[in-house]
Amino acid sequence: MNAHIKNVEYAVRGELAIKAEALRDQLNKTNSLPFKTIVNCNIGNPQQLQQKPITFFRQVASLCDNPDLLLSENRHIVSQLYPEDALQRAEVLLEHIGSVGAYSHSQGIPHIRENVAKFIAERDGYAADPENIYLTQGASAGVQSILSILVKDKSTGILIPTPQYPLYSATLSLLDATPVPYLLDESQDWSLNVTDLETSVSTARANGTDVRALVIINPGNPTGQCLSEENMREIIEFCYTQQIVLLADEVYQTNIYEPEARPFHSFKKVLMSMDSIFHDLELVSFHSISKGMIGECGRRGGYFEAHAIDPEVMSQIYKIASVSLCPNVHGQILVDLMCQPPKQGDPSFEKYSQEIGSIYSSLRRRSRKLEACFNSLEGVTCNPAYGAMYLFPQIRLPAKAIADAEAHGKAADNFYCLEMLDATGVCVVPGSGFGQKEGTWHFRSTFLPPEDLFDDFCENLTNFHKQFMNKYRD
Amino acid sequence: MNAHIKNVEYAVRGELAIKAEALRDQLNKTNSLPFKTIVNCNIGNPQQLQQKPITFFRQVASLCDNPDLLLSENRHIVSQLYPEDALQRAEVLLEHIGSVGAYSHSQGIPHIRENVAKFIAERDGYAADPENIYLTQGASAGVQSILSILVKDKSTGILIPTPQYPLYSATLSLLDATPVPYLLDESQDWSLNVTDLETSVSTARANGTDVRALVIINPGNPTGQCLSEENMREIIEFCYTQQIVLLADEVYQTNIYEPEARPFHSFKKVLMSMDSIFHDLELVSFHSISKGMIGECGRRGGYFEAHAIDPEVMSQIYKIASVSLCPNVHGQILVDLMCQPPKQGDPSFEKYSQEIGSIYSSLRRRSRKLEACFNSLEGVTCNPAYGAMYLFPQIRLPAKAIADAEAHGKAADNFYCLEMLDATGVCVVPGSGFGQKEGTWHFRSTFLPPEDLFDDFCENLTNFHKQFMNKYRD
Ligand SMILES: Cc1ncc(COP(=O)(O)O)c(C=O)c1O
Ligand SMILES: Cc1ncc(COP(=O)(O)O)c(C=O)c1O
Repeated sequence: MNAHIKNVEYAVRGELAIKAEALRDQLNKTNSLPFKTIVNCNIGNPQQLQQKPITFFRQVASLCDNPDLLLSENRHIVSQLYPEDALQRAEVLLEHIGSVGAYSHSQGIPHIRENVAKFIAERDGYAADPENIYLTQGASAGVQSILSILVKDKSTGILIPTPQYPLYSATLSLLDATPVPYLLDESQDWSLNVTDLETSVSTARANGTDVRALVIINPGNPTGQCLSEENMREIIEFCYTQQIVLLADEVYQTNIYEPEARPFHSFKKVLMSMDSIFHDLELVSFHSISKGMIGECGRRGGYFEAHAIDPEVMSQIYKIASVSLCPNVHGQILVDLMCQPPKQGDPSFEKYSQEIGSIYSSLRRRSRKLEACFNSLEGVTCNPAYGAMYLFPQIRLPAKAIADAEAHGKAADNFYCLEMLDATGVCVVPGSGFGQKEGTWHFRSTFLPPEDLFDDFCENLTNFHKQFMNKYRD
Repeated sequence: MNAHIKNVEYAVRGELAIKAEALRDQLNKTNSLPFKTIVNCNIGNPQQLQQKPITFFRQVASLCDNPDLLLSENRHIVSQLYPEDALQRAEVLLEHIGSVGAYSHSQGIPHIRENVAKFIAERDGYAADPENIYLTQGASAGVQSILSILVKDKSTGILIPTPQYPLYSATLSLLDATPVPYLLDESQDWSLNVTDLETSVSTARANGTDVRALVIINPGNPTGQCLSEENMREIIEFCYTQQIVLLADEVYQTNIYEPEARPFHSFKKVLMSMDSIFHDLELVSFHSISKGMIGECGRRGGYFEAHAIDPEVMSQIYKIASVSLCPNVHGQILVDLMCQPPKQGDPSFEKYSQEIGSIYSSLRRRSRKLEACFNSLEGVTCNPAYGAMYLFPQIRLPAKAIADAEAHGKAADNFYCLEMLDATGVCVVPGSGFGQKEGTWHFRSTFLPPEDLFDDFCENLTNFHKQFMNKYRD
């Protein structure tokens, strides 16, 4: 068997998640647990926790699925169910796609790539080329292809943050490459310190590791940070000087909760706003339909933009994409809709804005409520979520709890999270699943439980924490 | 850069396909080519060539996309557009799935896996366990995961047929494993000769290659063969004796054109019908929604059943699946519909059967027409397609054509196919993209062009071939 696969760890769907499934089965059979439901806060999966999909997006998707609805003989019935702009959008898409049941171009449907390029140009104020855009089955697939191309062998090093989203560590294990961790600074809102980055690179290089790329997740998962433009410029200069490819995971670009103080800037925009010598920096930026206010995780859609990537590498990217034939067309359609949503004046615009707006403000309220809840707990501190869907509180556990965890052969944070699951039905992920500074303990929780249950949710967590602390108080 | 990726060849979407795209662009701009359209016979992509989707499947899919259509206040309008069984099926699916926008279980939605298990049990007469079924993003993704787990390093050998579907050779290149080719016997309807298999294995093992698995594509791509039950039993005995995992790619299981003489048998069924000592043989069987009469390639859905696979390997399979989070839910829904289509008595049954039946008989007619056309050409011989969607004629080219090809730095079959594309707009794939017996030349063509254009299509190919032969006649 492939030994690298044995080393893969994937905490988001690991021990805690599997135990949560087992408890859910148990709940379905008996009522013998101290809670009524399992609350999956282990994964950023909004529609699993009752977030409603965007109506316009689903309307267009369903018309593309069932083009009989667009036949003129059905129009008088269908127009009672669908607004005119949804019908028109589906017609335009099908004109370009043909059937959603056909394999598409391996790189993604050209018309949709053009719409992605327009979106990027409008967002950044700098042009984008559809030829540099690849549609993917979620950002996950894009990240995995790019890493597989950059990695030569064990000697290849890829800089990844601590803490990080485990897609990165897991993919590097699979490829048998060397992760080169750098620390995000919890005391500075999880920002990057370029001096630390330089140390990480020179140490790795001194050990014979060929450091080729730097992964940045911004807005951050699990940290919720949102980088300042100044910090981003330093990072770009660093990559340029060190001849390192920059991989920018920007899937949370619209989950921004302090837009004045901490707006989102894309790395592409910051790069293009800098002196033209930096424009040659190799940058790949990832985006997804799974996050933002859209939350269409189950469709698996996304894209990456490859900026200034070596043409030979570009041709390898195409080849890899073609072995898997094409990304699923439904995901591609959602990418189109995400990039070109209804505009002012369109029949669906008002409803669309209202839906996006209400999800957004609810997410912001929930993030603050949960942050306040965590910060009110004994021994817990938690940075605010400037972005993304998660909080990553630090927990200071009593020595007795740590000893008890050790006696059970568990890391202390894992032990804490398992007790939380047993007591409350809430499933979170221990900090060790993401990596954390030696000697500190954290866990990651989404703030996605439905708003009407949120007070209960916070109260349950608070009660659990109190009991846990009392149980293990020294 | 990853050197293994440089070695990947993927002919189905290679030079010919890229040139065909360029010619299509040229056609859109000017009318200066000797044909009116590009006909993509390079890929089994039925809906690209105007095959209609199955109405019931698309109805259910569209209802799952837009659950507002299921609201009771819309029912009086919606029931003018949708039959009752489509509405009910969508309701059942959504009850189990929640939202199609949520990440599902990494292994696939449990309810759908149960339906797959029922389908397998009905097909084979032997039970299947939903826990052994993984839903995948097309068979491609399933094959890639399983191979990535079986391959340890360069020393791992995987038996693959010559000719083969290039997913296999490409994936082995990517994984830097050793392909161990075995020949399909063109003179015996492309069947497998177990003595040859034994020779391939012992030679490879003598060279230090650890042969772990045998890939069989049945019905065959590109060959169109359909194996006899007797041949399958020999293969199973061979794998059992040699302790080799059997990977059965059965995506064309319903594309069977001589059901009396050459019916499809699944390897699972044949295995279970044999003496129980063989039941321990490790077998993975792949299926897909892309083929058959369904042809929903763009959705990327499929499954594999893992039979008697080592539990430790099973847990690695789960881990790999979870790194990619989950297969797209739309593809999963189509797997459900493929496995449990409308039944006798359901409102949609008649239409469903009529649609499947008419696609089936048209495919069969087209396969015979194209076979007859190929066999009528000078120097060309072609086995019938007992299954799948392709013919793989052998072409005997004049020495002058071979010399001219060499002078252009091209393989002779590639040269022939490029000239065909230039003259007719028909894009096929040279035999070298699949592998062929040394000193023989072939090409693969689907028989998917629409039936009303089929006579023209055959005539164009015939005229091209005559001109080619005359041009290069010695
Ligand atoms: C930082 C980050 N990147 C990528 C992904 C993958 O998203 P998807 O593959 O659904 O697009 C996630 C999902 O949670 C994520 O948090
Ligand atoms: C033999 C064979 N296996 C697997 C596949 C992949 O099918 P998909 O990934 O669309 O399910 C194909 C597609 O043509 C094929 O011919």
